[in-house]
Amino acid sequence: MKKIVKHDQDVTKQHNKQMILDIIKKQRPISRAEITKITKMSATSIGRFVSELCEEGFIRETNLTSSGLGRKAVMLDIEPGAIYSIGVDIEKKRISFGLMDFSETVTVYRRVDYLAQKSTPGETAELICREIRAMVEEQNLPYEKVIGIGIGVPGVINYEQGIVQFSATLGWKNVAFAKRIEAELQIKTVIDNDLKVKILSEYLYGSAKGSNKTALIGIGTGIGSALIINGEVFRGGSNSAGELGHTTLDPNGNLCDCGKRGCLQTYVDENSLIMEARRVSDITDVRQVYAAARNHERWAKEIVWRTALYIGITINNIVCMYNPDTVILSGDLIENYREIVDLVEEHSEQVIWEPFRGTFKVIPSELRGDAIVMGAGALAMQHFAPLAGKQADE
Amino acid sequence: MKKIVKHDQDVTKQHNKQMILDIIKKQRPISRAEITKITKMSATSIGRFVSELCEEGFIRETNLTSSGLGRKAVMLDIEPGAIYSIGVDIEKKRISFGLMDFSETVTVYRRVDYLAQKSTPGETAELICREIRAMVEEQNLPYEKVIGIGIGVPGVINYEQGIVQFSATLGWKNVAFAKRIEAELQIKTVIDNDLKVKILSEYLYGSAKGSNKTALIGIGTGIGSALIINGEVFRGGSNSAGELGHTTLDPNGNLCDCGKRGCLQTYVDENSLIMEARRVSDITDVRQVYAAARNHERWAKEIVWRTALYIGITINNIVCMYNPDTVILSGDLIENYREIVDLVEEHSEQVIWEPFRGTFKVIPSELRGDAIVMGAGALAMQHFAPLAGKQADE
Repeated sequence: MKKIVKHDQDVTKQHNKQMILDIIKKQRPISRAEITKITKMSATSIGRFVSELCEEGFIRETNLTSSGLGRKAVMLDIEPGAIYSIGVDIEKKRISFGLMDFSETVTVYRRVDYLAQKSTPGETAELICREIRAMVEEQNLPYEKVIGIGIGVPGVINYEQGIVQFSATLGWKNVAFAKRIEAELQIKTVIDNDLKVKILSEYLYGSAKGSNKTALIGIGTGIGSALIINGEVFRGGSNSAGELGHTTLDPNGNLCDCGKRGCLQTYVDENSLIMEARRVSDITDVRQVYAAARNHERWAKEIVWRTALYIGITINNIVCMYNPDTVILSGDLIENYREIVDLVEEHSEQVIWEPFRGTFKVIPSELRGDAIVMGAGALAMQHFAPLAGKQADE
Repeated sequence: MKKIVKHDQDVTKQHNKQMILDIIKKQRPISRAEITKITKMSATSIGRFVSELCEEGFIRETNLTSSGLGRKAVMLDIEPGAIYSIGVDIEKKRISFGLMDFSETVTVYRRVDYLAQKSTPGETAELICREIRAMVEEQNLPYEKVIGIGIGVPGVINYEQGIVQFSATLGWKNVAFAKRIEAELQIKTVIDNDLKVKILSEYLYGSAKGSNKTALIGIGTGIGSALIINGEVFRGGSNSAGELGHTTLDPNGNLCDCGKRGCLQTYVDENSLIMEARRVSDITDVRQVYAAARNHERWAKEIVWRTALYIGITINNIVCMYNPDTVILSGDLIENYREIVDLVEEHSEQVIWEPFRGTFKVIPSELRGDAIVMGAGALAMQHFAPLAGKQADE
């Protein structure tokens, strides 16, 4: 049922002010006259909103002036130091942090070693809080300027309630992780599935810029996927869409650590590569397989060839289910051996359903290691920035 | 970027009038006082909108009066004969039609035999137009009361442009089918993928009522899927999401008529059942396999058991990718042997990824054969009903 249209002046004012801030953020530097032209609002209204935003510290007048004919106009820009968010990326062997300013630039990175399987949720939260405190203090930032924390976590995440429902990488089940961080630091915190954070990042800053129908496949230890359509991350019923790794290929296939047989990730992730390789060579790391393949060793080339075939199948299955116009390949398995993207292309005639051939492009991730830190920072900005639309829901 | 809030009085009036019509449609019969209470608008405004809607013929005053205390109020209802739409379901061997009135009841059904593979798009359009004309004339309906036609077509459909991009069932490629019907009958026409129409129908009238995160699997000759989230059919990038049948299970598996190997539909559709059965028995129809299974013939029970296993795998893969709270099983393969739903349930421990177990229910379709006719009629109502929100886009 449609909602009644209300002519609430405060709501309208807030909405227009936010819109002007968004315009300045996206098109900076920009003059008052240009904003007036874009919004078709009166110059007086624009002037008033701009003054308010200046006073509140969100924007500032720059030394630049407009270059066209006529009277020189002062250019407006946002104030990067107005507010900050913190993006966190929890991986199997390390945790990465980034301090993102209001211009959505990550100005400080930080990384610590970590052993997911040997750390309790409590220890992990403690480590994260300690590092965030150190980072904020090193920068001499007042805590109230940090408006939120975003954390990308590998696993099935209840995004609305901030709960890690299940994470094979971390070995956690039903951990209310966002609340632990909030309680300790008194900073609002949002957590989300790592690949959903990553695709948001690719959409805002990376390979998916300008595409509105992008799927991302992440292959490392395990395999997963995410989808963004018209700027919205596709979440499914309870934020768990995209768990590609446990789709079944073969009911009599390889045993997976989830207890099922024939899961896709038993054919294509790092562990499956290493297990294959160990039949003929004493290796411990997937990079050794890649080195051997580059060295034209027959067994390694065969493994890489077969991996490319299964990546091709994965792409076909994603395209059949999600029908994207772009597929981004990401994760350590890809990033350590970019040549594999061409090999996948060679298989495409064999593995892609004919009506979909030519309807999408396959590209490697642009952002690589920092994507999740950036996306998590952006997620926190979207959720917690003052004035932003989302705030009314808190 | 957010849009500027405009205080356009006509738009607001139109919006509120449509809302009142929607309320009457959903909660009929209803009194003016109840509408006033729900909308929180003034009694005068409600009175004026109701008068307008009566004059325009969309609603009427009934003989019923309200039952509570106080002054008896006249109850309002919609006028079923105000406008009509026509729903069409094109299948391999028949085409079904339904005349849907403004109360969204299909009052007349019609069905004709048809051989998809032996008919050109032109012949098919001719047949459809002839039957629609006959149906409208039999009912003595003035043509201008039929505001639109909706058609469910098996295949990859460009929904916005009304083009059948690819249909294996019909043997068509790139046919601008909606335009043909429109040109012939001078009635606006929308076409969509059959399973997308079916899930809309299940959402509005059937098993998916009340669930907002429902996936549907259709298994007959071929296998496909659809998803509805918060009342919106999930379309993917170009309306082709859900092509489950050509996801690959095994790169060395059964050859599919699409030219690939190991497509899911080579393991689970009617043709695959028949082919399996013909190794040991001279059957031509899947119903013979089911009859034999009911008769406890070992080979037939084995085939049905294996089919249930692959349906279970299909459900796992849908749930991993879409994360729905309900999965509807539909199509001839299910509807001719409802017992299979229990057999699928028995496999679930083996085939469903553990974190998703218990997060969704599996139910057979309620609407069976008429779902697509009803959904197509509803689709046409949504698209073409006067006053409705969509009309502004035409």
